[in-house]
Amino acid sequence: MQKNILKTIQKQKPIVHCITNSVTINDCANILLAAGASPIMADEAEEMEDMGKIASALVLNIGTLSRRTAASMHIAGKAANARGIPVVLDPVGVGATTLRLETAESLLESVRFAAIRGNISEIKTLDDRVRSSHGVDAAAEDALGAGEEALALARRVAKRLNTVIAISGAVDILAAPSGAAYAVHNGDALMARVTGTGCMSTAILAACAAVAENPLAAALTAACAMGVAGEQAKRRLTELDGNASYRSYLIDAVFHLTDEALDQEARYELFE
Amino acid sequence: MQKNILKTIQKQKPIVHCITNSVTINDCANILLAAGASPIMADEAEEMEDMGKIASALVLNIGTLSRRTAASMHIAGKAANARGIPVVLDPVGVGATTLRLETAESLLESVRFAAIRGNISEIKTLDDRVRSSHGVDAAAEDALGAGEEALALARRVAKRLNTVIAISGAVDILAAPSGAAYAVHNGDALMARVTGTGCMSTAILAACAAVAENPLAAALTAACAMGVAGEQAKRRLTELDGNASYRSYLIDAVFHLTDEALDQEARYELFE
Amino acid sequence: MQKNILKTIQKQKPIVHCITNSVTINDCANILLAAGASPIMADEAEEMEDMGKIASALVLNIGTLSRRTAASMHIAGKAANARGIPVVLDPVGVGATTLRLETAESLLESVRFAAIRGNISEIKTLDDRVRSSHGVDAAAEDALGAGEEALALARRVAKRLNTVIAISGAVDILAAPSGAAYAVHNGDALMARVTGTGCMSTAILAACAAVAENPLAAALTAACAMGVAGEQAKRRLTELDGNASYRSYLIDAVFHLTDEALDQEARYELFE
Repeated sequence: MQKNILKTIQKQKPIVHCITNSVTINDCANILLAAGASPIMADEAEEMEDMGKIASALVLNIGTLSRRTAASMHIAGKAANARGIPVVLDPVGVGATTLRLETAESLLESVRFAAIRGNISEIKTLDDRVRSSHGVDAAAEDALGAGEEALALARRVAKRLNTVIAISGAVDILAAPSGAAYAVHNGDALMARVTGTGCMSTAILAACAAVAENPLAAALTAACAMGVAGEQAKRRLTELDGNASYRSYLIDAVFHLTDEALDQEARYELFE
Repeated sequence: MQKNILKTIQKQKPIVHCITNSVTINDCANILLAAGASPIMADEAEEMEDMGKIASALVLNIGTLSRRTAASMHIAGKAANARGIPVVLDPVGVGATTLRLETAESLLESVRFAAIRGNISEIKTLDDRVRSSHGVDAAAEDALGAGEEALALARRVAKRLNTVIAISGAVDILAAPSGAAYAVHNGDALMARVTGTGCMSTAILAACAAVAENPLAAALTAACAMGVAGEQAKRRLTELDGNASYRSYLIDAVFHLTDEALDQEARYELFE
Repeated sequence: MQKNILKTIQKQKPIVHCITNSVTINDCANILLAAGASPIMADEAEEMEDMGKIASALVLNIGTLSRRTAASMHIAGKAANARGIPVVLDPVGVGATTLRLETAESLLESVRFAAIRGNISEIKTLDDRVRSSHGVDAAAEDALGAGEEALALARRVAKRLNTVIAISGAVDILAAPSGAAYAVHNGDALMARVTGTGCMSTAILAACAAVAENPLAAALTAACAMGVAGEQAKRRLTELDGNASYRSYLIDAVFHLTDEALDQEARYELFE
């Protein structure tokens, strides 16, 4: 794992521009601040060129998508490509509606992504180009198929779309177009009981991509950081704490996370 | 009280589609996850048919209403009716503006609701069809009029609109079109100092309605669950805790709530 | 400092109408409830006249601005002026995009503001009428220029725009068109690591302005209240707490704050 990504974020305070959903927008901003980055949330079309000039990374998250924000995503994505800053896609619930699938597909055609992070159902949808019948959570049958199948899926989609693919789940699977891949074993099942842990992971991935050597290194640090924070937050739970306190503890853990602690607690395998 | 609603939610994980306000959308998602349901927040018109195919219940909440979301509510409501899944209305601040009142009225004409949950001012507005002069909180004079008057109001509106009416307040009043009614004595005054406790109650009511025998049973479980959670959260407060910590404790309490605990702590009367 | 502002808010429960960004809208509502005010969040153009009839203060916050909400701000601002209730502007990231700068400028032409609260970069942008190159956080070089320069800036802009100017920073600087000014030394650096502490300050300023003798008194109480709350929240932090817990503690502190405690803990200077 690249040794200094968290420290570099804290030092450079990269501006991460997020076009994201209204459900978890506050958590995404706070977890970026926790990591030392500087979030900007803006989604009006005519602001996109201006935001593109000051941002160091861009997140396109299609939760609570609208025609208005879909149009903004295209403008922002192209502006980011023109400047050469990394763009990360979070295809929230892409299998749930035609609007989301078509938006994701047209973004994939017009924008070059450094990475795409989603659950296995979302990444499968991008692979199949077929609308699934599930919502924003991973389908149970998809989650069971993790492991070998997820690795093959991530590699296939990474190669086909020429971008890093990060599949979040009980085990996170990350793959680069080259075929290099990681499995990250950090994390906790409770993360699925807090809305937006996926969105937050994507935001952190973008902050990492703003400073990392390459997108796969960014995805690895982000997946490990979120997973380690999820484990630390779990250990902090008292008897009466539930998913709301867990959400705060998760962000708090990112606030205190260092490269050194991450290096000690990260558990991952490299597949070459 | 129906004995197994919370357990059934945890088992079936019903997808609850919410078209809701931007103020409390995150809390609504997290309290649904706390209860074991699967929230989907989406409000763009062209997604509504697709969301309707996968949802098990629908929430229409008119806080931060816009023309765009009002149109989506009509489409989603009709799609939900066509599939026979329960639709719950939260007429947030319906007396405050013409847009909200007219939207509520046109929704009542075109959509069949399983239940409507609001504070007494909001339900009175639906009864009077006259714009009141207050905001999103219950008017002081309305709150004082609870008790006999609220029971009569709930029964009258339930019968006229042919839907379950849930009036939240110091005592919650629930009434079915048949005249069957409950008073729920759980809850805490501090709940009114957290934005969105009403919205969260409505979301929980929808999750309950997805699995309950009938909407009145769902409303009873939801009112008792929120009230008991509010009491448990109150007991957890330390000297420095205020409404922000209380908000987290409230969601945490729902996370841990079981049908057995609910049965023990619920305090309600049946009026037949 | 005016002695009874917090108590008066708790007693009168002024309705504070906020047209604000989707990132921190929930925190703004909860901190207003913490202070005893009654928040209404609404941003659809056709609701603005109605909301104007019931509100006691208005907040215009240009974070996550859109053409739709910019139009609503003009209507709401004029309606508030017509009724004589105070209007407070928060020029979030005004230097970042042309849309924000042009919206702020046109609002300044058509709406009379009781106060404008922003960081030093934002207030400088209003002074310079030149787009800066930074995002929503204060530029590092601007933050270093606090002190004498900030005082002169605040006085100059206050006079030119004929409104109270509140510059948030390590030291808050407040100035009235008359030249009367304050420096407030309360607060904590951690506040900059929570998204929306500025937005929350603006919301509290508006609640204070609804009941205070004049806008400068409101700005002083608001700046001291937020600063004292920030210090109290800091003292409450345990080893594992980060910015997420700090956010809750901050709102909790406002919940418990009294005029007496504020009077004891506030540290400010008057410049006449």
